[in-house]
Order: sequence, then structure tokens, then C-alpha cells
Amino acid sequence: MKATISRRSDIEPFHAMDVLAEANRLKSAGIPVISMAVGQPSDPAPRPVREAAAQAAREGRIGYTDASGLMSLRQAIARHYLDHYGVEVPADRIVATTGSSAAFNLAFLAMFDAGDRVAITAPGYPAYRNILKVLGIEAVEIDLAGDGYLTARHLEEAHRSWPFKGLLFASPANPTGSVIPRDEIVRILRTAEDLGVSVISDEIYHRLAYEQPDTTALAIDPDTVVINSFSKYYCMTGWRIGWMVLPKELLRPVERIQQSLYISAPELSQYAAIRAFEGTGELEAVKARYAQSRKMLLERLPKLGFGIAAPPDGAFYAYCDVSRHTNDSMDFARRMIAEAHVAATPGHDFDPVNGHRTMRFSYAGSPADMVEAMDRLERWLGRA
Amino acid sequence: MKATISRRSDIEPFHAMDVLAEANRLKSAGIPVISMAVGQPSDPAPRPVREAAAQAAREGRIGYTDASGLMSLRQAIARHYLDHYGVEVPADRIVATTGSSAAFNLAFLAMFDAGDRVAITAPGYPAYRNILKVLGIEAVEIDLAGDGYLTARHLEEAHRSWPFKGLLFASPANPTGSVIPRDEIVRILRTAEDLGVSVISDEIYHRLAYEQPDTTALAIDPDTVVINSFSKYYCMTGWRIGWMVLPKELLRPVERIQQSLYISAPELSQYAAIRAFEGTGELEAVKARYAQSRKMLLERLPKLGFGIAAPPDGAFYAYCDVSRHTNDSMDFARRMIAEAHVAATPGHDFDPVNGHRTMRFSYAGSPADMVEAMDRLERWLGRA
Repeated sequence: MKATISRRSDIEPFHAMDVLAEANRLKSAGIPVISMAVGQPSDPAPRPVREAAAQAAREGRIGYTDASGLMSLRQAIARHYLDHYGVEVPADRIVATTGSSAAFNLAFLAMFDAGDRVAITAPGYPAYRNILKVLGIEAVEIDLAGDGYLTARHLEEAHRSWPFKGLLFASPANPTGSVIPRDEIVRILRTAEDLGVSVISDEIYHRLAYEQPDTTALAIDPDTVVINSFSKYYCMTGWRIGWMVLPKELLRPVERIQQSLYISAPELSQYAAIRAFEGTGELEAVKARYAQSRKMLLERLPKLGFGIAAPPDGAFYAYCDVSRHTNDSMDFARRMIAEAHVAATPGHDFDPVNGHRTMRFSYAGSPADMVEAMDRLERWLGRA
Repeated sequence: MKATISRRSDIEPFHAMDVLAEANRLKSAGIPVISMAVGQPSDPAPRPVREAAAQAAREGRIGYTDASGLMSLRQAIARHYLDHYGVEVPADRIVATTGSSAAFNLAFLAMFDAGDRVAITAPGYPAYRNILKVLGIEAVEIDLAGDGYLTARHLEEAHRSWPFKGLLFASPANPTGSVIPRDEIVRILRTAEDLGVSVISDEIYHRLAYEQPDTTALAIDPDTVVINSFSKYYCMTGWRIGWMVLPKELLRPVERIQQSLYISAPELSQYAAIRAFEGTGELEAVKARYAQSRKMLLERLPKLGFGIAAPPDGAFYAYCDVSRHTNDSMDFARRMIAEAHVAATPGHDFDPVNGHRTMRFSYAGSPADMVEAMDRLERWLGRA
């Protein structure tokens, strides 16, 4: 029997994942591709995480947890809010999720119906748009038009021309690395409240800002939906473990959906993540290496004709204008990986309108690899 | 700002998960509840799995994999199809998923649009109904009316009165443990083909049939969508790792959705699962213990007034008619856990119409616990 294929499955691929697959294919064929495509630390999870995981694995009694996660993990995250931000968040408002990926899906399903509109920024994380679309939610793209980061003014203007029910924003942002100043976050949340717009604050790049301290939306409005993850700062991408903080009234709807759609986040990763907050020493050393690569890239990328399109104050991304080289960043990325053996992500992933002339370079790899990647691009572009 | 709550979040809770949460709450208060509520082996994953996981955890380089999973895992699964069923399945048609939970969600999203109808059995696995509903797909419940298992005749009759686009069935089934004979599976697939109905075969209880060999739908029609998991036979519930086998035309739609919704299944669990097929010695010993508990329960449950509602030929469930004790199995389950300290799942989870007078007992726990649970029920019901 021929399988039926839904209309809603016709979403964009996550091109960074396609680039990863191509890089993996080349690597397994012996070609030493350097990947700057995926937002993935090259460092392992910190030692206490690895030890806890190895012990749990040896014992092997890895079972379902409550859908909302182990209370000990939720309490560890609550302590982190107090230690890092000075904000009190009750553990029972924290839900462990299978990465931030699950958190986005759960938030969207619990908050919005098919046909609702949710605003995101362009450029922005492509999975936002793809998940929204597959769930029948209309993404309203707020064009930042080179402004660097989202402001309350963008929000107001966008809402005036095309009203929406929800807003999802990230700071530090993907793909630009830009950080929204605290005062502006205050204005964004106040404006959203005035407009009756529900806010989801994506804080997965927190602890990776280079110029200013982190601002969690919870410090401004404790009823904001906040999504975070152990993937980035804590170097735990493949563990698939993240969390969300929810206002009371969303706890049971999210729990119901989580029970059937996920059962629970992987228990081994939950055990391990409890110890992630003890890894600060190691992780700050990792961050110092990102800072070093960031400095190097801010110097070298423009010299190679890649203009920095937004201030990369956080995360581990440089978002570049590549229009001096190409008007088709997808094709350019393909040639770059095949000829220069450097993988980066075509801007189309992040911005369907202007992405043909942009590209994202992730500097989460080792500093030596990042330098080698720039050397290769220099040779490839004939600028050596 | 008050968070918005969607209409579609108004699905049923997965009551077994609520019972699990209540059992965990009581246990952490020092009350020694025996859980027969959740379909979860009490044995750990087999030794080669634990060793592989511990080693991967110590090294700690756990990253994103390709969305479809590690090729080495997909190849190991392909070999399993050849070894266990004598069926050739190309590795590139196998996709690693974050448990069968992700596989159901991916199959539903890739195959069906909002408003489509998909038939499932009543009784059946509650997450089917809940996921379908949250995705806007209408579940057509085929009432097995005490027939034990799905037949082609049920399928035809149900389709005549309420046509549907897809059919999802499981053998061995949850909650009944019933096994569909091979001839009947042939008839079901042929009938589905005649009716133009796309089939998803849930095979997560394979290798847990006590009376007859497993039949994979792939042996009959290589283009059936098959979902399987390492959770049950392989004792890897909390690892959240499963797989699906897809016809060619669904590979890219599923990959696209997986990229954005899941990124990839947990890599540590993928590494570990590769070794699961080496654990057959240990796992057959576990299965022998289930067989022992099954025999004991088939004797004792009826004596306690719990009539066996369907032939429990597979999985690790006994689905019972509890109408001699109650007309409200939810309330009965609550009292049983509070007073007898035995947790089992109210039938409402599996059958919204007739579930008020049924209950599912999972015997995946240790045989000693299962005996102790029956002793407790005997005392509680005053039949000692």
C-alpha cells in the first residue's frame, strides 16, 4: 500500500541539519571537514555530569520519570535561578523536557490552536518556524531589518499590521548572537502585556553573553513562559535535556501533553543534568575559548568579505552578510563544504526573505579548528 | 501577563502516568507501593547496553546525530530484521526515534492532516488517542467488543460506517496483551489496501509473545509503516529510544519534521541500543520471569473477582473486567493504591466508553512483587 503523505509535512528542512548530515558523510569518507554549521560545543559535558551518567548507566535502572521530570532536577534548576539571577522560582513550576525542542513543541501545543498567529524574529531559529507550521500555527515574521535585536517598537509595529496572539524571542539570539539590553526586555514585556500578547522567552544561550549579564524574563514578569536547555553552555546537546518554567495555569495542560507525547525526558540525562551546575569552573574555561574565537572571527571574517550582520554579543555565532561573494548562500555553502571543507549554515534557514545573502558561522568548535577554518576560507577565496 | 491556553491542550491525561506520579509520591513518603500501573520492566537494560552507555558517558562527547540516527544503529536494527524475522530491511529505511512516542508523533504528522481520520482499537494505548487529538486528527475507535483482537471484519465494518484514511494497530496489544494471528494480519493488510487505508503497525511488544512467533507487517507488505522500541523487551524505557521503518516516500517528510521537532534521538541511548541485540540471553531470562508471573496472575486474578477480559498472549499485561467490584475503575484504582498499596491503571485510559469497568495490571515487575501484590489485594478485598 502506498503511504499517504500529509500536506503539513511540507515544511522547510532544517538546513543546518542537512549540512551536518553532508559533513558527517564527507568525514566518514575520510575528508576532514571542519563544521561551523551546527550550534554544538566541541567540549564534552563537565566532569560531574559524565560521572553521574556513567554511574547511572552502570546500574542501568533507567526508567520513566514523572512526566514533569525528577523533582531533584527541578529543585537543582530552581536553585540555579536563585544563585545565578537572584530570582525565586518554585521547583514545581519547572518542567524537565527532552531538550528545548520538546519545550517549544509543548509550549506551542499548550498555548496556541491551529490558525493562531505567533510572532518570531527574522532572522531567527528555523525550528521555531518549522514547528509552528507543522502544528498549523501561523508564524508572523518580524523583520529586524538589520537592527540587530528585537525592540518594543518592532513588536508594536508588527502587531499593528498583523495582530498576533503570541511572541517568541531569544536573547542571546540565534543566528546573530545579539543580546537585548535589560531595559529593552522590560519594554518588550510591558508592550506585550498592553497588546494582550503571550510571551515565550527562549533563554537557551544564557551564560554565553560576553559583554553584559543575563536577564531572565522571569525577573521582570514571573508569569512569562521561559524555555532553557543544558545543550549550549553546559555542553550537553546530544543528551536531549532542557526545561521550561511555566505559569501555574499552564502546568497541567503541558503535563497532560507531555505524558502522551514524550512520557518523560530521558532519565539518564535528567540524573546527569542535576550535576551540570557544579561544572561552572570547566564551563567558564570553555566560554573563555569561545571568547577567544569570537575575537579572532570578528577580525578575520570581515577581511574575507564576510560582513558581520549583527553585534555578536552572545551565544557562539557570527551572522554574516555574504553578498560580496554570492547571491545564493545555499549554493555557496554547498561549494564551501565540497571545496574548502568548511561547513557553515546558509542564511535561508534563519530568514526566508533575506537569507540568500547571509550565512551563520558557529564558533563552538575548538579555537584551533576555527583558525584552521579561516585559513582554509582564505585560501579558497584566493585572499591568502 | 496571563498565559493563553489552547483548546487543543484539553486532552485526557495519561492516567497511568498520573498513577505513576501518585505512586512515586507515596513511595517517597515511605509507603511501599507495588506498581502494576506502568508498562515498565523492573529489570535493568542488558549488560552490553549498560557497558556501552557507561563508556560513552565517561567520554562525554554526546552530540547531535543526523536526524535519522547513527548509521551503525540503523544497521544493527536492519540485521535484527534479518536474524529475527528473516526479512530484509535496508538500513536507510530505518529511522532512530526518541522512543516510540516520537515515532507516533512523526508518523501522524508526516502522514495525516488536521481533520483526517485514523482508526485505532478500543481498548488501545491511550497516547494514540491523545496525540491524534492534540494534532487535530480524528480518532475513529474500533470497538473490539470483547473480541480479543482486531480482525479484518472489524476494519471493514468500521470503515463502512465512518471511513478513515489510516489504521494503527498493535500486536501484541496494549492493554490486553492479545496477539493477532499471522493469517489475520495478512487479511487486515489486504483489506486496508482494498479500502485505500494507510497502515501503521505498532510492534513495540514484539519478542514478548508467549504462545506464537512474532509477525512483522514488513514480512507481508514491505511498505507498511512499522514502529518499534527498545523500551519493552530490551528493558530500556527511560532511555527513550525506538525506531520506525518507513516506505521510501515518507523518509524525507519524516526527516524534515524530525530535524526541527527533535533534532535527533539522544546519542548516548543510540550508542547503547546498538548493543541491545547482544542481550538476548539476559532478556530471555527476564521474559521467562514474565511468563511465570503471567501464569500466576491468570490463576489468581479471576479468584479475586478480576475476570480476564482478553487472552493475554503477549506483552506483560492482564486486562481485567472489574465490574464485580466497581462501576468506577478510576475511583477503585485510587482506593487500591491508597488502601492496598497496589497501583494499577484504570481502564478509562484505554477505552473511554467501557473503561469504567476495566483495569490493566502490568506484570513487568519482579515475580515476588507480583505475588505480594496479589496477596495484598486478597487481604484488601477480604478474600484471604
